[in-house]
Amino acid sequence: MRLDAENIEAFALGCAVLSAGGGGDTAIGLAMARHAIECHGPVEVVAAADLAPDALVMPCGLIGSPTVAQERIWSGDEGERLANAVARLHGARVDVLMCYEIAGANGLLPVLWAARLGTPLLDADGMGRAFPEMQQQAMHVAGVAASPVVLNDGRDNDIVLHSADNLAAERLARSCTAALGGTCAGALYVMSGRVARSAAIVGSVSRAVAVGDAMHVRRSGWPAALADETGGRVLIEGRIVEVERSGGAGFARGHAVVEGTDVQGLRRLRLELQNEVLVALEDGEVVATVPDVIAVLGLVDGRPVGTERLQYSQRVGVVAVPAPEVWRSAAGLAVVGPRSFGYDLDYAGPGAVRAGR
Amino acid sequence: MRLDAENIEAFALGCAVLSAGGGGDTAIGLAMARHAIECHGPVEVVAAADLAPDALVMPCGLIGSPTVAQERIWSGDEGERLANAVARLHGARVDVLMCYEIAGANGLLPVLWAARLGTPLLDADGMGRAFPEMQQQAMHVAGVAASPVVLNDGRDNDIVLHSADNLAAERLARSCTAALGGTCAGALYVMSGRVARSAAIVGSVSRAVAVGDAMHVRRSGWPAALADETGGRVLIEGRIVEVERSGGAGFARGHAVVEGTDVQGLRRLRLELQNEVLVALEDGEVVATVPDVIAVLGLVDGRPVGTERLQYSQRVGVVAVPAPEVWRSAAGLAVVGPRSFGYDLDYAGPGAVRAGR
Repeated sequence: MRLDAENIEAFALGCAVLSAGGGGDTAIGLAMARHAIECHGPVEVVAAADLAPDALVMPCGLIGSPTVAQERIWSGDEGERLANAVARLHGARVDVLMCYEIAGANGLLPVLWAARLGTPLLDADGMGRAFPEMQQQAMHVAGVAASPVVLNDGRDNDIVLHSADNLAAERLARSCTAALGGTCAGALYVMSGRVARSAAIVGSVSRAVAVGDAMHVRRSGWPAALADETGGRVLIEGRIVEVERSGGAGFARGHAVVEGTDVQGLRRLRLELQNEVLVALEDGEVVATVPDVIAVLGLVDGRPVGTERLQYSQRVGVVAVPAPEVWRSAAGLAVVGPRSFGYDLDYAGPGAVRAGR
Repeated sequence: MRLDAENIEAFALGCAVLSAGGGGDTAIGLAMARHAIECHGPVEVVAAADLAPDALVMPCGLIGSPTVAQERIWSGDEGERLANAVARLHGARVDVLMCYEIAGANGLLPVLWAARLGTPLLDADGMGRAFPEMQQQAMHVAGVAASPVVLNDGRDNDIVLHSADNLAAERLARSCTAALGGTCAGALYVMSGRVARSAAIVGSVSRAVAVGDAMHVRRSGWPAALADETGGRVLIEGRIVEVERSGGAGFARGHAVVEGTDVQGLRRLRLELQNEVLVALEDGEVVATVPDVIAVLGLVDGRPVGTERLQYSQRVGVVAVPAPEVWRSAAGLAVVGPRSFGYDLDYAGPGAVRAGR
């Protein structure tokens, strides 16, 4: 498989859907990735099973404020600078890039970097969706060390940080991004092919392309198409009748209510937001929770709507997409379950449906 | 020469005097250095002239808020962690430690670290006094790169940062210290013995010991003793009649006025403060400026008084101590002259005296 001029748009759409409302915009990342593919040729996507055991895998993406990231112009050199620094640290060339987060711009910048470097991209990622914190990675659950974390601002400034503890490394890296202007490129959880095969979430790139493809060809019915492709469920289709957001520091908290018009009567779905859509409730009953992806799609164009762009009276469909298996384990739920986001709720499970439906 | 139980107190006093009112307190640093000398033996002090040309010299000290530094308990392991990281980066063992700033705690912690590592200390430093910014280093004037800068919090957390530009490196390092708790140990301007001989300010450790010795033995007359030892001038002896400080973020700005009682009549010396005492004026005439050390000594005990501890009615003597030669050059004054601190003044010069005196 390759990412090329034909499928990069579907891939970007898949990344936007898997953002679950967070993860930032894909427009600039898509434009940059497309341009890099035009200039340097398609990016080879390597299946985890085909990875050499001693290959050096570099998970990478942006770290820091997505708001700043959207306004900042990237030089495109970040990937090479990261790869050079990682190669120095590990005494070996980087063989394969990997998206640490297959969502929003973080799905697309590694494609740009891989195209420019002439390096393949691993068909895997660390999250299978968007999450707000760096240690919410399958590699963390698998016991891989995040350090050394390499940060680069695309200019002359590099930071390498080491911490024995992945949570401390995340905290350090986040503070250091402030020094680099609020957002920067980062590489972390660097590992061998052998480790990546079992520690990463495999198949993420093909999954994003498949999701994008399934929705791309349609002129309507996007929620159903997404549910069909992913084994998910359409939770509701209707209009947003309430949006409340508070926040600051680039973190959107709040809720939205979608009112559906069903032949069987009025329905209301409440979405709880913390950057991503994390919980969906109907009549006080939890119908879907993180780590499943709760995707909000506009019914006019099928485009996913970020939590920061939800608006009163917008027509949307809401789809729950099952999370990768690693997140549904006890160890996974400890890192990304509803409780890790402060909700006193158990994971609803991918099959959660209301009684009587 | 060695730093041992006999002379460490004199050295600490010298470091406090050379702080020019800034640089933080020496009490904890002295206690820790003394304890390390007791446990691990004296620290050999190597003259720059005796340094092997290919020796790896590691300038080190604390970076970040001195206020936090005074309240934080150091593990003592910082030096070893810094030296290990520097050795990895340079592919060679660190042969000699060096104080990057021979003032306050930054004069004493490298002694502690050298004692624990069994490594000699270079008879040199980067500032010859206290300065607020990291690039106010003789090595910067000599064109030595500050990067890679290594930061360590004495626990498990290391940060290595690279920037082609020393000012950017300083800014990055300062931001990164926030990630490590506001203050941390740092190594920067790492260089060979050959470079250190010409780029560092040589003789700083012996100078601090000599300053401390000269004042230590006395029961009074400290300002005159300091002036005699350093070729400096007593600017005034008297009482503080005015202190005004504003600040925040660990940065003390303001002024103090010392009223002297002279047989020839009333005199008033105004001291301009920015962490350090930077300018002294008498009757509107500039009598001493940075980079000369303007030291304020208590007349009760001969102890230097930090700018944060100047108090109304305190009896003090003020002495101007000539700056090391590097700072009196045009290149030096561009980095540490009065204009670099925002004063529209030329350097007063070490011999500045009022007409008629």
